[in-house]
Amino acid sequence: MIAIVPVEGLLEIQEGDDLAALIAERAELQDGDVLVVAQKVVSKAEGRVVRLVDVEPSEEARRLAGDHDPRRIEVILRESRRIVRTRPPLVIAETPHGFVCASAGVDSSNAAGPETVVLLPEDPDASAARLRDRIRELTGADLGVIVSDSFGRPWRQGTTDVAIGLAGILPLLDLRGERDPAGYELHATMIAVADELAGAAELVLGKTSGIPAAVIRGFDAKGEGTARDLVMPADRDLFR
Amino acid sequence: MIAIVPVEGLLEIQEGDDLAALIAERAELQDGDVLVVAQKVVSKAEGRVVRLVDVEPSEEARRLAGDHDPRRIEVILRESRRIVRTRPPLVIAETPHGFVCASAGVDSSNAAGPETVVLLPEDPDASAARLRDRIRELTGADLGVIVSDSFGRPWRQGTTDVAIGLAGILPLLDLRGERDPAGYELHATMIAVADELAGAAELVLGKTSGIPAAVIRGFDAKGEGTARDLVMPADRDLFR
Repeated sequence: MIAIVPVEGLLEIQEGDDLAALIAERAELQDGDVLVVAQKVVSKAEGRVVRLVDVEPSEEARRLAGDHDPRRIEVILRESRRIVRTRPPLVIAETPHGFVCASAGVDSSNAAGPETVVLLPEDPDASAARLRDRIRELTGADLGVIVSDSFGRPWRQGTTDVAIGLAGILPLLDLRGERDPAGYELHATMIAVADELAGAAELVLGKTSGIPAAVIRGFDAKGEGTARDLVMPADRDLFR
Repeated sequence: MIAIVPVEGLLEIQEGDDLAALIAERAELQDGDVLVVAQKVVSKAEGRVVRLVDVEPSEEARRLAGDHDPRRIEVILRESRRIVRTRPPLVIAETPHGFVCASAGVDSSNAAGPETVVLLPEDPDASAARLRDRIRELTGADLGVIVSDSFGRPWRQGTTDVAIGLAGILPLLDLRGERDPAGYELHATMIAVADELAGAAELVLGKTSGIPAAVIRGFDAKGEGTARDLVMPADRDLFR
């Protein structure tokens, strides 16, 4: 059995907050648990917040913004290494980490104040590793940690949460070469367990009720890797 | 808290098996539970199995197959309404249901015997509804039911399980117009909860150990809809 438990009472996170300590106070954490933390609170604790009043939009940002705020588009362009699709004011972009997502992960809902936007962490794997180390220091528990974000998907409606940073867990379960119960080799079967864990945690997160983290117990996810392992290499990507 | 419990002991499913009864015997089911069943056992119970010895490959199938079995590609082409990408022997196709996935969902691993392939159910929402009705008849419990399958994603490595059929549950949680704790409207936020439930269930399914179903308890998913609601309408699809 797997259990997914929300971490409640973490409403207002500010730059410099000790997020690991705030979580450790509110959750009973055990070796082998997977802690999933929403990107937005990680970014806020790391001060990845931009005030739009400080942003001067470029010509391209004005063009892509349509009737919307060009300063927000300007921030998205700065956070992008490649623009994948646009339909003003929607921009799908590749981030410096290699993630392809709406607005390069720049988020204006639930932001850190009026007229601000929240960026992705600079290095979400490092963010996850810091949370993991600090929680081990505080509690002794050796966790897996995932930093999650809500991504849209081509061809499917709605977002699902995926792993954009991780530490101490396996991003992919590689079954290539394994045999199923009928004796057939499972060709090309790699399961993105870190994304499924992030999505499972989302089911108890509260976008409208201030629950930005969850603990998953009972899934043996221990292993090494990074969330960049979840990014399709360009030479295997049929959708560049 | 959400709990995810595997339904064990369902190894060999044959055409005509009463899958709902087999599950109800092996799981304790309660009102409000979500039962997630892997597509492969649903398809097998429905007889959606093709013997390759009965398949005559077309010229196009031979061309796309490269060094691989053109009969398998022929079945994929017959199950496709549109070919999205090919890199022999990989075919990404849109199914008649509107799902875009590898091999149009045609599966040769874990098949119903040598030289056979398993197709998607003809109408996976109807499959889910039949399972739901039959389980209510047998146990009195009013469940949500999801038929799940493992789909790849553009730009990301590995598969995650998604809902290809459902009954008695909400496919999408629509937060548009809701406000977050800071008072900001959550623009464009629709969460594909049925896909997250399917992915969460996958964490206890055993591709190599014969666990094709799981029960999720503690998530209030009751509602109406179909898995086709999870398909992006063509006019909003930036990736056709």
